[in-house]
Amino acid sequence: MGNLSKRTAQRLVKCYYLAREARALGVEFITSSKVALLLGVDETQIRKDMASVNLEGVPRKGYPVEEIINRLEDVFGLRKDRNAVLVGTGNLGRALLNYPGFSRYGVRIVGAFDKDPQKYGREVGGVWVYPVGELKEKAKDLEACLGIIAVPPREAQGVADVLVEAGVEGIWNFSPALIRVPARIALRNECLESGLVMLLHEMEVMKKSLAGD
Amino acid sequence: MGNLSKRTAQRLVKCYYLAREARALGVEFITSSKVALLLGVDETQIRKDMASVNLEGVPRKGYPVEEIINRLEDVFGLRKDRNAVLVGTGNLGRALLNYPGFSRYGVRIVGAFDKDPQKYGREVGGVWVYPVGELKEKAKDLEACLGIIAVPPREAQGVADVLVEAGVEGIWNFSPALIRVPARIALRNECLESGLVMLLHEMEVMKKSLAGD
Repeated sequence: MGNLSKRTAQRLVKCYYLAREARALGVEFITSSKVALLLGVDETQIRKDMASVNLEGVPRKGYPVEEIINRLEDVFGLRKDRNAVLVGTGNLGRALLNYPGFSRYGVRIVGAFDKDPQKYGREVGGVWVYPVGELKEKAKDLEACLGIIAVPPREAQGVADVLVEAGVEGIWNFSPALIRVPARIALRNECLESGLVMLLHEMEVMKKSLAGD
Repeated sequence: MGNLSKRTAQRLVKCYYLAREARALGVEFITSSKVALLLGVDETQIRKDMASVNLEGVPRKGYPVEEIINRLEDVFGLRKDRNAVLVGTGNLGRALLNYPGFSRYGVRIVGAFDKDPQKYGREVGGVWVYPVGELKEKAKDLEACLGIIAVPPREAQGVADVLVEAGVEGIWNFSPALIRVPARIALRNECLESGLVMLLHEMEVMKKSLAGD
């Protein structure tokens, strides 16, 4: 299997969720038309997406739910164990440390970092908090391949630079700052404010189209 | 101005951030090549995006930063005041209640809701927490046009239904559940787990391409 396009990957992530929901409900097969309906996309698109990861439906039954889950866990590399470090233990950082969902994907946050002496030297969500000055050294020691940034925007680039020096392969940036990393590093910006702006824009568009503009 | 495509809107959101960063640094003009470089996209694309919201550069100077900000605040409807309610005051809900960034976009969380009696009847991040059973009535009273969902996946659809009944125009869903709303409602799924999966996938792809596969 080659590289998936971002769009295809995004749809397949949703298929993966659906399949897990279906399995939890005891459902064994799911049709492409059902998937298409639930995701709000075209049925042929779903068939193409499934085919791109070598998933084939059984006539009159649909795709085997268990097979979707297994195949996509392989494709997305969800069965590997990965260590992550988190920088910034403010409200958002603490929410992420307490978030139970990540371990399901093999990701374990093994260390947290903060610049505030009142915050380090103790545990948050079962994770030890270290001084941010020790980030490079400790991230290496902890064999972190993923860095999570939850610091204020002004500090984000500096933290990203240290994480790259420490040898992480991916950075998950929750600050609204646009950070720059070498091309070999996977970067995902999870900026909540930009999510909000997109939603507000959609609300404006909907309002106008309902008003008949 | 017509409706922007999702892609264009996403790039323009980033342009808006850049312009705000630039203004904070006292910069008055920014060139399309600089924007293109910082966003990692093509320069002609940036010019098209800017033109789609009637922004024009000044020869040899670039786009006036203040004008970018003003135009995009109009386009995205960021100058309106909007009331929001938040459902679910677990770790993520509390992080969102304490997040300072939303007020900059005219969004004010005016009420929070939880099903746990230990959690309601007090304030979190300056916002009063009500019993979730009062959601429909209170969301109307508070004139909320935006609902934020931070409950466990199993409860998300039920909460969304009540928010729709209460008359919100948009829903910002932080649970990993795929919820369904009427077509007139703007919906944004901000699923952290799917963000993580996308990042892990990118890390896998990078690793393979570095290994020369």
